[in-house]
Amino acid sequence: MFDTLTIIAPGLLGASLAMAAHQKKLARKIAIYARRQEAVDALNEQPWCDFASTDLTAACQDSDMIVLCAPVERIITLAEQIAPGLSRNPIVTDVGSVKADIVQRCETALAGKARFVGSHPMAGSEKTGMENACSDLFEQRVCFVTPSHATDPQALQTTVAFWKAVGSTVLEETPDNHDRIVAQVSHLPHLLASALASFLQSSQPRAGDLCGNGLRDTTRIASGHPELWGQIVSQNRKEILRAIADFQSHLSAVSDAIASENDAQVLDMLSRGKQFRDSL
Amino acid sequence: MFDTLTIIAPGLLGASLAMAAHQKKLARKIAIYARRQEAVDALNEQPWCDFASTDLTAACQDSDMIVLCAPVERIITLAEQIAPGLSRNPIVTDVGSVKADIVQRCETALAGKARFVGSHPMAGSEKTGMENACSDLFEQRVCFVTPSHATDPQALQTTVAFWKAVGSTVLEETPDNHDRIVAQVSHLPHLLASALASFLQSSQPRAGDLCGNGLRDTTRIASGHPELWGQIVSQNRKEILRAIADFQSHLSAVSDAIASENDAQVLDMLSRGKQFRDSL
Repeated sequence: MFDTLTIIAPGLLGASLAMAAHQKKLARKIAIYARRQEAVDALNEQPWCDFASTDLTAACQDSDMIVLCAPVERIITLAEQIAPGLSRNPIVTDVGSVKADIVQRCETALAGKARFVGSHPMAGSEKTGMENACSDLFEQRVCFVTPSHATDPQALQTTVAFWKAVGSTVLEETPDNHDRIVAQVSHLPHLLASALASFLQSSQPRAGDLCGNGLRDTTRIASGHPELWGQIVSQNRKEILRAIADFQSHLSAVSDAIASENDAQVLDMLSRGKQFRDSL
Repeated sequence: MFDTLTIIAPGLLGASLAMAAHQKKLARKIAIYARRQEAVDALNEQPWCDFASTDLTAACQDSDMIVLCAPVERIITLAEQIAPGLSRNPIVTDVGSVKADIVQRCETALAGKARFVGSHPMAGSEKTGMENACSDLFEQRVCFVTPSHATDPQALQTTVAFWKAVGSTVLEETPDNHDRIVAQVSHLPHLLASALASFLQSSQPRAGDLCGNGLRDTTRIASGHPELWGQIVSQNRKEILRAIADFQSHLSAVSDAIASENDAQVLDMLSRGKQFRDSL
């Protein structure tokens, strides 16, 4: 598929992607950029890495496909940093979990130097780091690809084929639609779990003695990294606020039904909720 | 502890309680009331049941301790039904997950015939029925005992000792406080999970393809029995509405912090939520 695939940088997603690409022979050569020499040394031991470097330009020099696998707040900076050193008009994609801002600013940063296509593989877990990477991380997962009006059609097609080749199902959405969807199915649940946990921390600090699996399950994701989720909130503020507001309206309607003793409506809500959850 | 302990009726909680009482030799004789003859026949085969009957009066006749182990909406009716046949001024307690209404109406129904003490063992699971019963269901669980101003002190003491004897830690609260606590630590989480699930059913029906463990965990309890939870809502309406309203205020504050880009406050909420969840 590619002559040279470059991965920036080798965290859980980046290392897993390199492993998958190696296993499925998607590139003649796999190059990886890492910030620290120790990481580069470790990468040079791996069969799924042909060239590792702490030099960003060297890592990208001959690439025809570059994947920015850094945390969301670094992706745009990386795009700006690699742009000057590119000469082969590669495809550049990313793995960021929010898209509108990233797509618009990476397109700008790479204009005339590369063809940017936004991606968001819904893979990974609470684990981090190369030591937890695996070649099947993307298998049977969904990957969003988010073309804008400026996206090069062939670059889009190649990017879609790439994610399919590592085992994912690809959903194409606009960057804004993507951000709205993930705000609802990922960010809202997390914020509700955190809000419930922080609410109970004040009002029922003794809950640990009392709680059953219900509370444990509902608040499990509140144990996620606060800094990571703080970043996600600041990156998808508009859609998260909209999702919270829409949920608040729904919850108010539920509360009104309870208050007016409209038990049939409450039962309907509980039944539809069960139906949805059972379908996951 | 008791001459005759009567269990009404042999569901998950009732059968487990009979098993525990038998194992720990808490009564000379264990009598169990069941509505159906087939259940009585099955009970007569069990070592933890000395006498089974479809006749409520016969089951309670000689008891000094009676435990009403039926679903919340039947407890009050059962108290009214057993009252006329009681002659030994037994202690009567229950396992209902809401208390204010039950305590007040059972005290009234049993006045002059028995000494009522409200209980709520925080035990059990989504499983139901005698076939899932086990003698250690109450071990290391919390059991609320909810005396009112009218509760007989010795009956209270005996009831507390009973729950401790089957392995539980006992928390004494007024019936109103109990209902407020369970509204927050049990009913609110369930309603939030259901509301989130029903909200996404309308707005993101395709979420099943996209969702990670976060959404699955947060909505898991939405798979609970709608009818059961509809009953709980109607039994604890006031406190549930208060819990939802208080949570909504908290969530609005979170939303305002996000909207005003007060990232420090958002991070603080996420950190406190993590702290709480990690402590469960």
